[in-house]
Amino acid sequence: MNLAVVGIGLIGGSVARALREAGQAERISAYDTDAQQLEQALSLGVIDRVGHSVADAVSDADLVLLAVPVGAVGSVVAALIPALAPGTVVTDVGSTKGSVIESVIAVCGEWPQWFVPGHPIAGGERFGVAASRADLFRGRRVILTPGSAVEESAIERVRSAWQSCGATVVEMEPQHHDEVLAATSHLPHVLAYALVDCLAGMESEREIFAYAAGGFRDFTRIASSSPRMWHDIVRANRAALLPVIDEFSRVLTSLRDAIERDDGEAVLAQFQHARSAREQYLETVERAFKNQ
Amino acid sequence: MNLAVVGIGLIGGSVARALREAGQAERISAYDTDAQQLEQALSLGVIDRVGHSVADAVSDADLVLLAVPVGAVGSVVAALIPALAPGTVVTDVGSTKGSVIESVIAVCGEWPQWFVPGHPIAGGERFGVAASRADLFRGRRVILTPGSAVEESAIERVRSAWQSCGATVVEMEPQHHDEVLAATSHLPHVLAYALVDCLAGMESEREIFAYAAGGFRDFTRIASSSPRMWHDIVRANRAALLPVIDEFSRVLTSLRDAIERDDGEAVLAQFQHARSAREQYLETVERAFKNQ
Repeated sequence: MNLAVVGIGLIGGSVARALREAGQAERISAYDTDAQQLEQALSLGVIDRVGHSVADAVSDADLVLLAVPVGAVGSVVAALIPALAPGTVVTDVGSTKGSVIESVIAVCGEWPQWFVPGHPIAGGERFGVAASRADLFRGRRVILTPGSAVEESAIERVRSAWQSCGATVVEMEPQHHDEVLAATSHLPHVLAYALVDCLAGMESEREIFAYAAGGFRDFTRIASSSPRMWHDIVRANRAALLPVIDEFSRVLTSLRDAIERDDGEAVLAQFQHARSAREQYLETVERAFKNQ
Repeated sequence: MNLAVVGIGLIGGSVARALREAGQAERISAYDTDAQQLEQALSLGVIDRVGHSVADAVSDADLVLLAVPVGAVGSVVAALIPALAPGTVVTDVGSTKGSVIESVIAVCGEWPQWFVPGHPIAGGERFGVAASRADLFRGRRVILTPGSAVEESAIERVRSAWQSCGATVVEMEPQHHDEVLAATSHLPHVLAYALVDCLAGMESEREIFAYAAGGFRDFTRIASSSPRMWHDIVRANRAALLPVIDEFSRVLTSLRDAIERDDGEAVLAQFQHARSAREQYLETVERAFKNQ
């Protein structure tokens, strides 16, 4: 299989490495707006060929992986259509699916048979192709949200590629994907950014950060994620994100009011409920890993 | 120096181990309402003697460390007063200082000369004396909030003990301590509990937890802290905590509104501000460690 990767950073580079290691990618070409990333990918042996353009990179590919910010998928699809060979399958890795599908439909007029939207639930704090690794997706989940217009053989090609990377593949409706991720990923990022912003705005800011302990460091780790990428994600998924922010605010207000009226029983019940829910979550995660 | 520890869990046990290792504690006695913890502390060699009661444990101590929940300090002080030898110094490790001082004054009528309130900014997810270690406080900060009624020699005894544990000791007004900790520690805990509660209340709860990734795990780690202990802390510090919850809600609402009106510039600015503030925080922490 020939693979083309558009956007050769942590995710694109890790897919290239994993498919190469699994013997699934014969030839790998890539395109990126960042020439340095492309050169580095070539010199690290992650890819075999640098395309002059999106169209050039994808021209002989069996599978095209779009690992670009969610806001860029539409324009990349517009650029690759003229060069797309019959039978080529295109997939993406964006954290939101509704907005990506909309932007592709805006370019193509309808949901093209060759486009299988996807989202690997994996990543890292580090960026760029130098941080890519073949095992990034091992034991992780990948969500595909193919519409009914997409051919089963196209879905199968994408599913099989992710399975070769060691991932478990599940299918979901795009809207459901966006709701689940709004709650588990986009909301925590918004809260972490808001918390650091809140503290940075306080009078004794310097002192506050000096006395922040390990819990604070873990809690705000995701506030070191790329502001540009997350700005794209929250805007793209705002329809699903706003209701979960509102639901969170409702829960926080109820806890705040219990603290204000010194209702110890209510506070304790909410904390206990949270701890046991988190323990169930950890068990679920461990069970999922064991079932690999 | 003879040391008495009331409450021999992670913190109390770690102080005992550290002072023993530093050659600062000749004889260590302890009391705990949990007989199992006491036996374990004895068999691990963390302490030398088990007291029958608080009074018995502290009767020949030069320094008494109260490592009990903040809500229990008042009653423990009431129990130890009859047995307190002249010259004995008492300190605590509670996460809130205003409420601890209030409860001690309620028992003693005034701030006793022998009481030096303290708070080590250290801890862990694990509980109990079995998890205690001599290096728990190495490179960490300890805040003392002695009032003007306290003798300098008493403060010096507590300061020197913490320095022997490898910690850096600073002094602060009790109210200022409570405000700083409300922002850096108590607020993040409240948010983590509220987030897990919020997600656990959603319709697709099982699925939501199944798709939560590493970021969520880190973000909610502190929601696995002891609900009982944190219930004590937020109640004890609610005067300082409520304003920071409200300030956080204000920042979150402003971010939420920027997302709703699709104001990309405002969202990006808030995320960028948070990321650079967090980077400054990490630099501050690293500098503090280097200066040890």
